[in-house]
Amino acid sequence: MDSLISDTPKRRRAGGRRGHQDRAGHAVIEQMPFRQPFNPDRPTEPLGPEGVAAIHDGVLHILSEIGIEFLNPDAVAHLKRAGCRVDGTNVRMDRDFVTEMVARAPAEFTITPRNPDRALRIGGGWMAFGNVSSPPNYWDLKTGKQTGSWARYVDFLKLSQYFNCIHFVGGYPVEPVDVHAAIRHLDCLQAKLELTDKVVHAYSLGRERVEDVMEMVRIAGGLSHAEFEAQPRMYTNINSVSPLKHDFPMLEGAMIHARRGQPVIVTPFTLAGAMAPVTMAGAVTLSLAEALAAIALLQFIAPGAPVAIGTFTSNVDMKSGAPAFGTPEYIRATQMTGQMARFYGLPLRSSGVCAANVPDAQATWETSASLWAAIQSGSNMVYHAAGWLEGGLIASPEKFVMDCEMLQQIQRYFDPALWATGPGDLALDAVAEVGSGGHYFGCQHTQDRYQQAFYAPFLSDWRNYEAWDAAGGVWTAERAHALSRRIIDGFEAPPLAEDRREALAEFVAQRKAEGGAPTDF
Amino acid sequence: MDSLISDTPKRRRAGGRRGHQDRAGHAVIEQMPFRQPFNPDRPTEPLGPEGVAAIHDGVLHILSEIGIEFLNPDAVAHLKRAGCRVDGTNVRMDRDFVTEMVARAPAEFTITPRNPDRALRIGGGWMAFGNVSSPPNYWDLKTGKQTGSWARYVDFLKLSQYFNCIHFVGGYPVEPVDVHAAIRHLDCLQAKLELTDKVVHAYSLGRERVEDVMEMVRIAGGLSHAEFEAQPRMYTNINSVSPLKHDFPMLEGAMIHARRGQPVIVTPFTLAGAMAPVTMAGAVTLSLAEALAAIALLQFIAPGAPVAIGTFTSNVDMKSGAPAFGTPEYIRATQMTGQMARFYGLPLRSSGVCAANVPDAQATWETSASLWAAIQSGSNMVYHAAGWLEGGLIASPEKFVMDCEMLQQIQRYFDPALWATGPGDLALDAVAEVGSGGHYFGCQHTQDRYQQAFYAPFLSDWRNYEAWDAAGGVWTAERAHALSRRIIDGFEAPPLAEDRREALAEFVAQRKAEGGAPTDF
Repeated sequence: MDSLISDTPKRRRAGGRRGHQDRAGHAVIEQMPFRQPFNPDRPTEPLGPEGVAAIHDGVLHILSEIGIEFLNPDAVAHLKRAGCRVDGTNVRMDRDFVTEMVARAPAEFTITPRNPDRALRIGGGWMAFGNVSSPPNYWDLKTGKQTGSWARYVDFLKLSQYFNCIHFVGGYPVEPVDVHAAIRHLDCLQAKLELTDKVVHAYSLGRERVEDVMEMVRIAGGLSHAEFEAQPRMYTNINSVSPLKHDFPMLEGAMIHARRGQPVIVTPFTLAGAMAPVTMAGAVTLSLAEALAAIALLQFIAPGAPVAIGTFTSNVDMKSGAPAFGTPEYIRATQMTGQMARFYGLPLRSSGVCAANVPDAQATWETSASLWAAIQSGSNMVYHAAGWLEGGLIASPEKFVMDCEMLQQIQRYFDPALWATGPGDLALDAVAEVGSGGHYFGCQHTQDRYQQAFYAPFLSDWRNYEAWDAAGGVWTAERAHALSRRIIDGFEAPPLAEDRREALAEFVAQRKAEGGAPTDF
Repeated sequence: MDSLISDTPKRRRAGGRRGHQDRAGHAVIEQMPFRQPFNPDRPTEPLGPEGVAAIHDGVLHILSEIGIEFLNPDAVAHLKRAGCRVDGTNVRMDRDFVTEMVARAPAEFTITPRNPDRALRIGGGWMAFGNVSSPPNYWDLKTGKQTGSWARYVDFLKLSQYFNCIHFVGGYPVEPVDVHAAIRHLDCLQAKLELTDKVVHAYSLGRERVEDVMEMVRIAGGLSHAEFEAQPRMYTNINSVSPLKHDFPMLEGAMIHARRGQPVIVTPFTLAGAMAPVTMAGAVTLSLAEALAAIALLQFIAPGAPVAIGTFTSNVDMKSGAPAFGTPEYIRATQMTGQMARFYGLPLRSSGVCAANVPDAQATWETSASLWAAIQSGSNMVYHAAGWLEGGLIASPEKFVMDCEMLQQIQRYFDPALWATGPGDLALDAVAEVGSGGHYFGCQHTQDRYQQAFYAPFLSDWRNYEAWDAAGGVWTAERAHALSRRIIDGFEAPPLAEDRREALAEFVAQRKAEGGAPTDF
């Protein structure tokens, strides 16, 4: 597939910086600037010290007595060398080994993408939100449900780049099923690196794919091999096959990343009542055991490699077995996992998720609950934070735009100006001046501050009913649909030096000529 | 207006208790039992100790140096007698007087309605959620916006009684504009006391109305005058006229309540940028000053009278001046007010609010934000928790049902079972038993627990897209509409002894014959 941007950047930006800013693509909405949010809230911690100790003990019990299956001979060989008890693919780790390995991991690290202004700190109070990743299907208000396609994939890249509240571009926001699996990663990453300048990731689906993506990230960043490996430039996310299993390609990809200094998030998919115990503490304990097992391996082969605990613990609908998201059980599991991540001194990844099929009220209360869970748990990375529907089987542009409205509100919620108590904030002089007979619209204290005083939503309609009705009575999802089209249609790609663009295209052409990556995984 | 339940209770309940339970009215959904939730979370506290001290100092500065207008001669006379500095209607209170009076108020109290099983504890970690109150208009998916009417008022009483997650029936859930204002309180309270058995309130709109409502609550509870006054049986909520004013009828109603031992919530309506400073700390400080002014008065005339601080601090849309709700500013203001309420040792009331005109995604993210603000602030009473739209100008049955789904989820979120870490919760034996090859659906640990393990929503649709689509592809608001009709149509009133019902009707008939209450306020 050719470069997505065929006309020269010079021609397209003839209006200069000012003209560029004024064009539709960037002026569709007034949004907050790109800035990584810092979460100042004390986490919500349901567990007492004895609860933390009980879960920690349970994790070590699973790792030392029950063991984890490592379906990767290299990994098993490493762990055997480390002194673990190996029985076929089953590996049991001594408690001290786990503790020692986990202690090697850094509590915080920084990922620097091709545009260094988009670097992300992962750890502490820092948060980063990413687009929906990996749905096989697409849905919008006009088309209904469709199989994911290249055209839709590109649409979502544009939304992901456009919104400043999206900090990283994780997996494919929708699976472009019409692109052959052997070359999909090449086309996808080429488009992603051209249309976005934010942190990207590699799916750990075999050595060739991982190494191709790493090379493309290196080329797009204009980096030497040494510069690439000197610090995190991208990341991968691996899922265990719960219960108690890590599979071959995920472990392979994780080890390649760790050896080259690129972060690995380990996210078990522990649905309570299905792949994990029906009790939330049980599901959290299993999830942590699976995560720490992989982290111990990575710290053994690459001490100090950047890693994070991922959580995807939720419950199923016990009537149907269908996964549920954003439930009360989900919130508490995420909070508990956050407590344990702090106990282990590791960053945490959670998600913005829902089970709803369309971007309606249910989708919103489920997603809102999962975003609050991310805040309350002290999550550092929030996957799927915009665009996810149907338990991750659908990506929707309306939902993407709606979620971005919620994400901007979260960023504003973190602004210390909202609880500042200096003399100008308490406004006692203004209270005396206005007295009991007037109002504050006109006073100097208000005039000096009103433009920045309050968050201005881009999607909410705050008109009264009559004005809203006279303007067509448009519900949120329809407003989001129109906005998504305007953003996509007016999109302009971020700058990318011509030599890097050409080098990327050359690499992709060469790898395609070689047949791409094997598809027999 | 005649008694709303004209056929005899005996005939209507011919099926006996079991038949009663099985009928549509109570079997429309499976809901959680009526039980007051206890919030175990540590509140979110944006203010440091210096912030709390600064706001407290600002409150005392306003009360002692700027003063509050008390537009009620009785109130002014009391405060003069208390040693306050009076200048016409302006009253300035010494710092020590305020502190001393506020310290007289109890940190917690219990309100016992006509059904003592519905008693509510107000204070500490206890929470209680109430229906939307006072919108002049009604909206549903089929009718669109209409002026509030008696028929709709009765509909909402049925919803308020039906849902166990609604703990008190505050103001009129929609204003029955077709009932004359002179007798509206009589008809409204008669219906409320017949169709519900939960805590009710009186609008403080003149002595006659307040005393009529008190008498009706006393009659419905089968209480002597002494029994009525011995403990809280109902409550009132008063709003200051911000900035810096308390008006005549609100103060009158508050004083009547306090003298008779009935709780008073004082809720200033401080919209930052309009009736309050544009800065959130400034708006919170003004709100607290207005609240404590009234509380000091009430504690002076009735030491130890149950009172609560109400917060309604939000911001306006600076483009239009329209009020906004559930905003980032709203959340932080509510959290700060919660910190201050704990500092003063008083219960807190907040709200479930939004600016949206229809029950869509915007309505849900705004309402969800305000409900989380209630949790995080340690609120004890949550007004308008179900049914509110358009900044309180519309009551909607769809929104009512949707909000109740969220309220049930909050109740479940508070359930300590979700973070229990006993041996059965950690489930290490089950993890060993299932191993890496199986799943947890069938294991004994799951079988023993699955029926109670997870919250089962009544409104969420967790089917996959295809099943949902085949069943009509119904969005949340439409599902809520259908459910609201079924609940209203199948409603059965709670038991009320015939002699009390008759006494109520007699009282109403007599007061109507006397002409009701004056309407020249």
